[in-house]
Amino acid sequence: MVKLARNPVPKRGKFSVRTATGKGETVEILAGLPDGARVERIVSRGAASPPGFWYDQEEDEWVMLVAGAAAVAFEDRRMRLRAGDWLLIPAHCRHRVASVSEDAVWLAVFLPSRIRSPWSRGHGKS
Amino acid sequence: MVKLARNPVPKRGKFSVRTATGKGETVEILAGLPDGARVERIVSRGAASPPGFWYDQEEDEWVMLVAGAAAVAFEDRRMRLRAGDWLLIPAHCRHRVASVSEDAVWLAVFLPSRIRSPWSRGHGKS
Repeated sequence: MVKLARNPVPKRGKFSVRTATGKGETVEILAGLPDGARVERIVSRGAASPPGFWYDQEEDEWVMLVAGAAAVAFEDRRMRLRAGDWLLIPAHCRHRVASVSEDAVWLAVFLPSRIRSPWSRGHGKS
Repeated sequence: MVKLARNPVPKRGKFSVRTATGKGETVEILAGLPDGARVERIVSRGAASPPGFWYDQEEDEWVMLVAGAAAVAFEDRRMRLRAGDWLLIPAHCRHRVASVSEDAVWLAVFLPSRIRSPWSRGHGKS
């Protein structure tokens, strides 16, 4: 017999903008589902994407620069970001971190689009 | 013939912690998918949940208090939050905003769990 938990337990945490010690980018998963949906805290420590590298993701990504400064490059444009600026990057929209400050901290939300994304205009047109 | 867009377009915005004028809670959807996954900016303006009201959601919710102070009540506990504190609230974990400051701004991420949530321990046990 299946028994359902009456009250699944909440969890809490503190989003720190301290970059602490260490080298290179670190990723902390704050919430995640088996289907790939997740919330991440990313500390860049000045580490831009390697030359020639592009992110090409299955998920739509909503990402906010919580602290620091950065520039994100797309195939046809570049966007400069300061703390509080956010980007909505549709799945398969190729992008890279062109530059990023030592104190940069990101909050990234990945949303797997099993259904066609409303932002991917042009997809599925005949 | 299906034509795929080569480069879906990124979108940008600024996450403001200003509560501006107005009364009562306002919700701004920053990103959303047709399946219910979404990122919201919520301005409470001191509006706690009405007496006796409980949120009982289909989605897992990751929510961070970006500015201000608040208290979130669950059936068996209460959590006080300050700016930077976040909660992971599993689907169907009943909760309400017990109190919230006038300057409170939230960032909420709703993740529909088509698959059983890893946080809903106890579910499906026989």
